[in-house]
Amino acid sequence: MKYSFRNDYSEIGHPLILKTLLDDAYSQTIGYGFDQYTLALEEKFREITQENVDLYLVSAGTQTNMILISKALKNYEAVIAVKTGHINVHETGAVEGSGHKILEVDGVDGKITLEEIKNVLALHIDCHMVKPKMVYISNSTELGTVYKLKELQDIYKLCKDNDLYLFIDGARLACALASSEADYGLAEVARYSDAFYLGGTKNGIPYGEALLIKNDALKEDFAFHLKNKGGMLAKTYVVSKMFLKLLEDDLYLKNALHANKCADILILGMDKLGIKHFPHNHTNQLFITLDNELLKKIHQEYDFEIWTAGKKESVIRLVTSWATDEKMCQMFIEYLKKNM
Amino acid sequence: MKYSFRNDYSEIGHPLILKTLLDDAYSQTIGYGFDQYTLALEEKFREITQENVDLYLVSAGTQTNMILISKALKNYEAVIAVKTGHINVHETGAVEGSGHKILEVDGVDGKITLEEIKNVLALHIDCHMVKPKMVYISNSTELGTVYKLKELQDIYKLCKDNDLYLFIDGARLACALASSEADYGLAEVARYSDAFYLGGTKNGIPYGEALLIKNDALKEDFAFHLKNKGGMLAKTYVVSKMFLKLLEDDLYLKNALHANKCADILILGMDKLGIKHFPHNHTNQLFITLDNELLKKIHQEYDFEIWTAGKKESVIRLVTSWATDEKMCQMFIEYLKKNM
Amino acid sequence: MKYSFRNDYSEIGHPLILKTLLDDAYSQTIGYGFDQYTLALEEKFREITQENVDLYLVSAGTQTNMILISKALKNYEAVIAVKTGHINVHETGAVEGSGHKILEVDGVDGKITLEEIKNVLALHIDCHMVKPKMVYISNSTELGTVYKLKELQDIYKLCKDNDLYLFIDGARLACALASSEADYGLAEVARYSDAFYLGGTKNGIPYGEALLIKNDALKEDFAFHLKNKGGMLAKTYVVSKMFLKLLEDDLYLKNALHANKCADILILGMDKLGIKHFPHNHTNQLFITLDNELLKKIHQEYDFEIWTAGKKESVIRLVTSWATDEKMCQMFIEYLKKNM
Amino acid sequence: MKYSFRNDYSEIGHPLILKTLLDDAYSQTIGYGFDQYTLALEEKFREITQENVDLYLVSAGTQTNMILISKALKNYEAVIAVKTGHINVHETGAVEGSGHKILEVDGVDGKITLEEIKNVLALHIDCHMVKPKMVYISNSTELGTVYKLKELQDIYKLCKDNDLYLFIDGARLACALASSEADYGLAEVARYSDAFYLGGTKNGIPYGEALLIKNDALKEDFAFHLKNKGGMLAKTYVVSKMFLKLLEDDLYLKNALHANKCADILILGMDKLGIKHFPHNHTNQLFITLDNELLKKIHQEYDFEIWTAGKKESVIRLVTSWATDEKMCQMFIEYLKKNM
Repeated sequence: MKYSFRNDYSEIGHPLILKTLLDDAYSQTIGYGFDQYTLALEEKFREITQENVDLYLVSAGTQTNMILISKALKNYEAVIAVKTGHINVHETGAVEGSGHKILEVDGVDGKITLEEIKNVLALHIDCHMVKPKMVYISNSTELGTVYKLKELQDIYKLCKDNDLYLFIDGARLACALASSEADYGLAEVARYSDAFYLGGTKNGIPYGEALLIKNDALKEDFAFHLKNKGGMLAKTYVVSKMFLKLLEDDLYLKNALHANKCADILILGMDKLGIKHFPHNHTNQLFITLDNELLKKIHQEYDFEIWTAGKKESVIRLVTSWATDEKMCQMFIEYLKKNM
Repeated sequence: MKYSFRNDYSEIGHPLILKTLLDDAYSQTIGYGFDQYTLALEEKFREITQENVDLYLVSAGTQTNMILISKALKNYEAVIAVKTGHINVHETGAVEGSGHKILEVDGVDGKITLEEIKNVLALHIDCHMVKPKMVYISNSTELGTVYKLKELQDIYKLCKDNDLYLFIDGARLACALASSEADYGLAEVARYSDAFYLGGTKNGIPYGEALLIKNDALKEDFAFHLKNKGGMLAKTYVVSKMFLKLLEDDLYLKNALHANKCADILILGMDKLGIKHFPHNHTNQLFITLDNELLKKIHQEYDFEIWTAGKKESVIRLVTSWATDEKMCQMFIEYLKKNM
Repeated sequence: MKYSFRNDYSEIGHPLILKTLLDDAYSQTIGYGFDQYTLALEEKFREITQENVDLYLVSAGTQTNMILISKALKNYEAVIAVKTGHINVHETGAVEGSGHKILEVDGVDGKITLEEIKNVLALHIDCHMVKPKMVYISNSTELGTVYKLKELQDIYKLCKDNDLYLFIDGARLACALASSEADYGLAEVARYSDAFYLGGTKNGIPYGEALLIKNDALKEDFAFHLKNKGGMLAKTYVVSKMFLKLLEDDLYLKNALHANKCADILILGMDKLGIKHFPHNHTNQLFITLDNELLKKIHQEYDFEIWTAGKKESVIRLVTSWATDEKMCQMFIEYLKKNM
Repeated sequence: MKYSFRNDYSEIGHPLILKTLLDDAYSQTIGYGFDQYTLALEEKFREITQENVDLYLVSAGTQTNMILISKALKNYEAVIAVKTGHINVHETGAVEGSGHKILEVDGVDGKITLEEIKNVLALHIDCHMVKPKMVYISNSTELGTVYKLKELQDIYKLCKDNDLYLFIDGARLACALASSEADYGLAEVARYSDAFYLGGTKNGIPYGEALLIKNDALKEDFAFHLKNKGGMLAKTYVVSKMFLKLLEDDLYLKNALHANKCADILILGMDKLGIKHFPHNHTNQLFITLDNELLKKIHQEYDFEIWTAGKKESVIRLVTSWATDEKMCQMFIEYLKKNM
């Protein structure tokens, strides 16, 4: 079987976490998130962030985005996002399906700019157009890039000055925080956003995203909303237990550091081989351009996604994870070298 | 801590299943349900049911109901359900939230009657009223009752004669099949419905419901729909692995038989004590009427849900599960006896 | 051609109103409700009601109900209505289509009772159930009955005590106000509701309902909402002009008095003939039970709706309007007498 | 009062049409579109188009777009439109509000290109992305341009080859057909589309758009859908009567020819003055660039919309209608000349 660099949700979950579940298989806990583990996890997030965040545990990223956004927006309100944003291209219209327009802007390397937000605001001026009410960003972005603290602060300030929510899609937040680009931690993410989530599915657990809501306006009746949208889990406590383990001794950061380190092995190796990757970033997603002949050869041994198929060259995406084998990264480079 | 008869999702999951996940923690699998485990599970369900069912794995029951129903109905079409139906009372308006009216009928002991369906059809005759297009039933029902094979056959026939879908909510289907009332298995459930699901969350796994779609009209583009509604799981293969284990050696039936057996211990014990339970059934949910004084006493030692609080007497619900300790059932009866 | 007692929207509109449009055919006015006529009409409604109501003009009743209700409710919130309520049976699921559950209660003669509202509130207690947030009533009701002032006051008080909106569907409000049952006018309707509409379509104009919103919570961004739901009319000013004429010299009341008077001719005539009508009311809708033989005979000469078809007897509905010919009412009685 | 070139819905309606209503004020007709006038109108449209079109009458353009599009698309399906398309910018998110993504492309002079449609199709390839299912165009476009017959044919063919619906927003279809650019009539519009509407609101009636559905897949249960979305009018027959008058002696074309002629007076006059208008077209919308000083002066005497406000120059839109006074067009040119 081929070794896979296809994505960061290829492996079930970290053994430490799965063992916790097994050890606790028969213990009785109350359902729907009203249990002591969920409370403890919420408390822990409040300590880490130093913000009065409310916690909700949701099974998947698209669902989390759709549920938070549809809570925040009225039917005539819209969310601003970059073209490449996950909600805009890879959620099969879930946000629109819940009734809201996405106002797309070009972005730079997957990141939104202040100018783009201002332009959207300048254009939407009367009741015949949707009302921009939220900015959505991913961190790390769909292109693997990471927002700098200053960028987060500026975007958040612009949002507050214009009565917009800032929501951060953190499906790969751990990898962002673990990258050399991020001069900040969860506390700053909470401080400079209205809501965000820390993804678990791509960080070592079988399922689960921890949605943290800081802005009081988004908190009201959230459990009702979650249930109405199909996002409430009977055994929420299972997800809480897994996240408690992820936060213990910063396992979530260790997992992310490992993923980033594996990516760095690939980057350095390919740099030496003169293979371009873009955009420059230090998280667990790499986009590289390969000659189609070479691509074909390495596809025989490795699994990955072809991002853009061209006639002579194509762009492929390589993704590493908490579970990636460092040796396989080195072998990939060797194999590449051998076949160039 | 009190022993809990509150519900059947209080315990994480069967050790056999959790161990499978732990043992396989690092294996790589493709995402979103396009993996070999999901295929194998689908194949297994096709063998068992002898029907060409399509399989989708969803994280929770309310979500499964909402997603299947919103796939089947157009915005002006409605689903018929009994008043006590889960979609009608305990899903915070998820079905209506997805745009569809529920036409409620009274039902008898939680079950719908042919007459009720016919009455709804007779009343809805022009474009100023919604168009009934589906019958929704739960099996076992929210009152713990089980449909007889003849009842399923008759309802299904009525549905087919009137161009209605029949959808069976199987959150507790295993307990229904394991009860002495059910003179049938999964094959008959598939044969006499257009779609149904076999619940995992209440049958020994941390999360997951196996939705099986037989009617071709409901199959088209289902993956698109699932993703659009936020129900697609990146690691679908984890749920598939758990269900494969549940089907192995009929573990799902064994789990259910155990739950029903525990309930029977409670029923027999209370029968001797002259405590009425209703309606008569042999699954894992019991509704009993207790004097409030007695209720208060047993609430000190046991956890359960108060279904209807009255001034002198109240109705409580006792639920057993795959994980219930038989001894605790006997102790509960002892405790009850001692305090009467 | 048969004379029609089928409904109160069979005739185009009052000549006085249509003439206004013709006389003004070429005058230029700004669109979308930002014109002087709409402002003047809003001002007039504020004077009449002595409340700071906002005015929106919508083309039809179902649309008005759906738009106001979907503005007021969040996706997990529900509206309480009687079974026979227009939104519950005769709007093809428009309210559910916009995402909201209708909690139906039996009602008495088409009117909701305090007890019924209290029961719904008592049953909806946690996040697994929808949150009741509005009471919807029609006045006159779908059965032609009229709320007494004391009833309106009591329902409104109960709503305010329980954080519910009270919305009054006034498709036939003029006929209610013109009936001997109503000891109040538009001012009291505004005082004891959060929003209501005065129907124009059934009161002498070709199209248009005047929606009046008193509660500030419902006013915010209403124009955005109206446009988003497809309810904004480019030539809103046409509807405003027609309503200005309807309010001039209380034409709306005169139209309604005429309709009620015609109904009274029918009632008195049938009383003498011993034909029962129900429920007792003095508006423009009558429900009478006729022997099927007789029904068949009068159906040859008159058009009306068969409400409930029975084997020997059926219930028919007779509706009069601002345009009904009094002589035709007398002739109908004569014809009935002759054929009994 | 200023003379208005602000839009083509500033005047109530053509006297011939309004007189029809007045003359017929008391005649009785059955409601909801099941009347002889609506049938006759449908028959007339079938004659004109030589296609088996179904007719529905809706009160406004945004509503018509939203209702047709939401009938055609499933929740995970999307509509392709140019950036400047009415549904994309000027409907306050009505299409997304009904649950569907709009895939925007740049367009050329307000018109979509084959290449753009093909690109969208090439990019949307799996269940993580919406499924393109419709192309939406306006004719005349929001920039006043008109599709040539060949363009319509090519787009329609591309749509059919790729299982896409083609829907034509005809809010200003009459002006398109009346322009020198259009080498076709209603028959060709019907032949090369799946559905389209002929706008009445901007063509001489107070309200009403005639939606014509050719594709059988869109016809099923349309009356249910229309009612569910709030678009059904009790007095549909009023709109039908007005459209019958519009079609009589081609009044709709005469109205449009007049509007276009008035625009031509403005164009020719400005050409002589060296004022640029763009894009080149021969319908009733002109976009011209004016020095802000000049703009200010003419704004004192004339009303129009400022399309894009610049620091030195701005773009204004001038719109003529069936009711525009030719002399006022000449006076506008004179006034412009005097103030340059």
